[in-house]
Amino acid sequence: MFSSWLPGLNRGLATPTGRIALLVGRSPSRSLQLSSRRSVPELSSFVARTNTCGELRSSHLGQEVTLCGWIQYRRQNIFLVLRDFQGLVQVLIPQDESAASVKKILCDAPMESVVQVSGTVVSRPPGQENPKMPTGDIEIKVKTAELLNPCKKLPFEIKDFMKKTEALRLQYRYLDLRSFQMQYNLRLRSQMVMKMREYLCNLHGFVDVETPTLFKRTPGGAKEFVIPSREPGKFYSLPQSPQQFKQLLMVGGLDRYFQVARCYRDEGSRPDRQPEFTQIDIEMSFVDQTGIRSLIEGLLQYSWPSDKGPVGVPFPSMTFAEALASYGTDKPDTRFGMKIVDISDVFRNTEVGFLQDALSKPQGTVKAIRIPEGAKYLKRKDIESIRKFAADHFDQEVLPVFLKANWNWNSPVAKLVMEEQGLGLIRRMENQEEDVVLLTAGEHKRACSLLGKLRLECADLLEARGVLLRDPALFSFLWVVDFPLFLPKEENPGELESAHHPFTAPHPSDIHLLHTEPEKVRSQHYDLVLNGSEVGGGSIRIHDAQLQRYILETLLKEDVKLLSHLLQALDYGAPPHGGIALGLDRLICLVTGAPSIRDVIAFPKSFRGQDLMSDAPDFIPPEDLKPYHIQVSWPTDAETEKNSLNPPHHPES
Amino acid sequence: MFSSWLPGLNRGLATPTGRIALLVGRSPSRSLQLSSRRSVPELSSFVARTNTCGELRSSHLGQEVTLCGWIQYRRQNIFLVLRDFQGLVQVLIPQDESAASVKKILCDAPMESVVQVSGTVVSRPPGQENPKMPTGDIEIKVKTAELLNPCKKLPFEIKDFMKKTEALRLQYRYLDLRSFQMQYNLRLRSQMVMKMREYLCNLHGFVDVETPTLFKRTPGGAKEFVIPSREPGKFYSLPQSPQQFKQLLMVGGLDRYFQVARCYRDEGSRPDRQPEFTQIDIEMSFVDQTGIRSLIEGLLQYSWPSDKGPVGVPFPSMTFAEALASYGTDKPDTRFGMKIVDISDVFRNTEVGFLQDALSKPQGTVKAIRIPEGAKYLKRKDIESIRKFAADHFDQEVLPVFLKANWNWNSPVAKLVMEEQGLGLIRRMENQEEDVVLLTAGEHKRACSLLGKLRLECADLLEARGVLLRDPALFSFLWVVDFPLFLPKEENPGELESAHHPFTAPHPSDIHLLHTEPEKVRSQHYDLVLNGSEVGGGSIRIHDAQLQRYILETLLKEDVKLLSHLLQALDYGAPPHGGIALGLDRLICLVTGAPSIRDVIAFPKSFRGQDLMSDAPDFIPPEDLKPYHIQVSWPTDAETEKNSLNPPHHPES
Repeated sequence: MFSSWLPGLNRGLATPTGRIALLVGRSPSRSLQLSSRRSVPELSSFVARTNTCGELRSSHLGQEVTLCGWIQYRRQNIFLVLRDFQGLVQVLIPQDESAASVKKILCDAPMESVVQVSGTVVSRPPGQENPKMPTGDIEIKVKTAELLNPCKKLPFEIKDFMKKTEALRLQYRYLDLRSFQMQYNLRLRSQMVMKMREYLCNLHGFVDVETPTLFKRTPGGAKEFVIPSREPGKFYSLPQSPQQFKQLLMVGGLDRYFQVARCYRDEGSRPDRQPEFTQIDIEMSFVDQTGIRSLIEGLLQYSWPSDKGPVGVPFPSMTFAEALASYGTDKPDTRFGMKIVDISDVFRNTEVGFLQDALSKPQGTVKAIRIPEGAKYLKRKDIESIRKFAADHFDQEVLPVFLKANWNWNSPVAKLVMEEQGLGLIRRMENQEEDVVLLTAGEHKRACSLLGKLRLECADLLEARGVLLRDPALFSFLWVVDFPLFLPKEENPGELESAHHPFTAPHPSDIHLLHTEPEKVRSQHYDLVLNGSEVGGGSIRIHDAQLQRYILETLLKEDVKLLSHLLQALDYGAPPHGGIALGLDRLICLVTGAPSIRDVIAFPKSFRGQDLMSDAPDFIPPEDLKPYHIQVSWPTDAETEKNSLNPPHHPES
Repeated sequence: MFSSWLPGLNRGLATPTGRIALLVGRSPSRSLQLSSRRSVPELSSFVARTNTCGELRSSHLGQEVTLCGWIQYRRQNIFLVLRDFQGLVQVLIPQDESAASVKKILCDAPMESVVQVSGTVVSRPPGQENPKMPTGDIEIKVKTAELLNPCKKLPFEIKDFMKKTEALRLQYRYLDLRSFQMQYNLRLRSQMVMKMREYLCNLHGFVDVETPTLFKRTPGGAKEFVIPSREPGKFYSLPQSPQQFKQLLMVGGLDRYFQVARCYRDEGSRPDRQPEFTQIDIEMSFVDQTGIRSLIEGLLQYSWPSDKGPVGVPFPSMTFAEALASYGTDKPDTRFGMKIVDISDVFRNTEVGFLQDALSKPQGTVKAIRIPEGAKYLKRKDIESIRKFAADHFDQEVLPVFLKANWNWNSPVAKLVMEEQGLGLIRRMENQEEDVVLLTAGEHKRACSLLGKLRLECADLLEARGVLLRDPALFSFLWVVDFPLFLPKEENPGELESAHHPFTAPHPSDIHLLHTEPEKVRSQHYDLVLNGSEVGGGSIRIHDAQLQRYILETLLKEDVKLLSHLLQALDYGAPPHGGIALGLDRLICLVTGAPSIRDVIAFPKSFRGQDLMSDAPDFIPPEDLKPYHIQVSWPTDAETEKNSLNPPHHPES
């Protein structure tokens, strides 16, 4: 009893716990109560087995056990390896006459059949131990066996699943789930979310509130799925987040809300996005940015898997402006350097034409990144494709500059640069001999964005050639803050749209600009970035009805009727509040190192939003649509053809 | 530090814990680690306040505190009562000149405005303590105050909310949520679910797996909402439960699955049903009925709120046949007696016409229930309305029989019954003098169903007149088992339909009847009943593909193409498995004693499926429907008129 729960309890504590073990040893009468608080779960309660396959060790020698599992493989009709979610165990097929029926069951059953065996845990004969297998010291001497369910011939072996196309894996998802990797991913996800719940609910008094998913469209909610109701012409919408509800809960005095919330977004075909996804959704009253940040740092520290190393807090923080200037993006990957450097002053008096041109404009800058040992690892065709990318996507020129004087890239411009401003450049970029500098010139944002992309591109190139830039065991968290509150609308730059959403509060220092230069107002939005991916975002919200109405109506020109309930709620004693949402799928994907978020979701959709296992979505008989007062508008042949070309049909969906 | 976490830790243990307290006292270096495991949540971490309003006691005397809350009321500009989710506290408005600005803020702010105050916890003057108020020994001597957000005039006072119509409460749900009752309900729900998760995940190794809600219609899924996709004519469906997914997870070796799952059912207008609801969804491999039942008993015992008294296990169990015979329903309220008694043999030789008639038929029976002290509490009009109900809804005659010979109900038949079989009846029903017996005759099921309804009806009548039949503090759990596997279809009794769902395994003793008399086969389905409400249901599932195909295709005549993925999965080594789902909304409703499930849901829909706060569902511009290839089929005037009559427009929706 003690040995089974103590390791788990100990794991929760950071210091040696000999004293607690001693205490319990002295006080056996309480062991039953304490054992119900143990951290090591009982995996064989309520079921036919006594143990899991994977848990058996030398300490179980001599025990009579009953195991249930899948036949992983069989060798010479003597050994059989049985698998369950905990691992593998070797089973000795009995060879004596009296056990002929047991032998027949175990030898006849096809691979991946489900069997139940009972027998004794025995030592493997000396020399036959398998140190690579956690159960490799023991085997099971079987007495009885039962075939619980035979397996038909599989489309392919479970262990080969990861090698198959993703479409095949998704079609046979129930087989793919048996793989070690999928079991690991889904179990880690469950455990990490459970720890988050403990932190929020048990340690900090958050209330888990379920909010509706049958809701009303939100202003600008073009990406919301619609659901016809039985009232003609009226539709529910599946919300992209519980944003309105969590704010209304604050108005309702719930004070500390969280939810592991299902959210929906219909973006058509986009790689690595799912039409339904999950976020850890949090909102608090009477909180500021610092409070939310500390909460989240504590949350991640508490829930982080112990085998992934400790999480250091507080996380560093960077303004949006700094992130753009140094990394060319609002989600910098801070695991490595190669930061963007502004070298405009070095080139203030340059004779190089395109730099001169750029710097003569009011917003003109010269920027560069340094690629360590680039001269050693980058090939000529890499440089060419980098320059092509810059020209195609950013309409920018990129100049590669090498330190070695004798390097010959047929670039008289680069040579001129080195001759004129070489020393300044070397000093500013802290160059070493084998480095390459990529240099570009132009407007600040555009130059930074380009170099931000090239920074990641070159990191990939270097790593593909064996340079370790980004430690795969490193988790580099970063807060990005002080975003702009508004952005010019893409289709009409004279109008403004919310950089995040219209409920974000303006930065207190910039409120005076709201009526004069709203485009200059910074917001109280914050993003959480991990290894260059956005894993969370949130803000302090507007709790003043008048300010909210001004922003919605006057600045954003939204239809406030759709939000009248929220505006009214703010008028009735809404507390100051703020919150955040963490993208759970992305976060678990990064923690597990999975190649795609589809690998951390039990039944994901394909790129085109299809469930390849059940073939959803599917046609529905017209009579089933009648109660909803809708009918299908079948596209004309011309439209069908157009749609079949655009978006392109992805091979894996 | 110790005092704040120890009470919580102790609460988790059943025996005195002086020894642990002693240990920690001797080992202060570990207190920091241990304190992160405390069970009492910290409610003021990360925010502007130092304490909650409701937590302050004499033990806080002299402390400088900052509180945030809503103004509950104000008396003579001297006292102000501040409220947050934890409770109320009295604030002394300073009267001296130097604090004029603080006084002005606190006296000018309208009720329900949000304020922040800082000050000292002081004793109330002797004699002014309020023993009814948990914080009644102290008050706050304010130094500074800030108006965080003023409140406009409310449509009505928060404390009067529960007295208002439900429609008004739903329209201003964010105000309704401030009421003590809604705070209590939602917080209890969150805590109980958290305990369930601890039990499943931490104690028994269940894996929390999120399954999709954008799925494909299931056979017979007429109650499933549909969601148009961007592929013309193709729709997702919102599933009524994760049934298929949880079975596929078992095939995938997940072994122990649970999910607090959002489910959807479109039943049009039905009282006390919600279009989206939540179930505690559970599935296990290698389990039998006993295993699932023990699991659930342990789960409820572990998660039951401590102030609702302990839950006794194991729960009693009853077959469907017994439930019908004794209670006339498959969800008996076992908190009280008044069971149905078969008294056919007493009347075997009766001369009473309608009894003779009934007993002369092959299925004929005579049944009765005894209403204790019915003669004292039931009025003549009660008896009349009971007889009318029986005639209208069951086409049955009901005969009230009184023990007192001198009772005059103008019923010669009853008099005849008492004269003829009086002694047998009294003995069988264990009658007391003031009792009334309700007697009916006819076919077993119909007679039982009628008396089952009358049993509940009479219990309500007796309780309305002050007789305590059902202890409101009693939670009476019951397993109902051995349901029939199939029922005759209502619209076509020659065909069969699943009594629950087509994946339910047949009872092992009845499998031989599947091919000959399928209507006689019992299932491995089980229901969990609490105080006469079904709070859960589940079954051992079919894991044999051939049997599943036979039941779907041959017996149920379903389109197996819609389920081909599931049938295929069963062929690839599906383990034996079973599970259950608990209806969370109903369960929490019973635990809290709330009058409706809408009182345990933060943002429920009205009877007609509307969100009265935001006015969902709502009209959508036709251009927003275009990407989904659907258009509205507007009903004709005649259809509209028909629909507006049926179903009737309920006043509260």
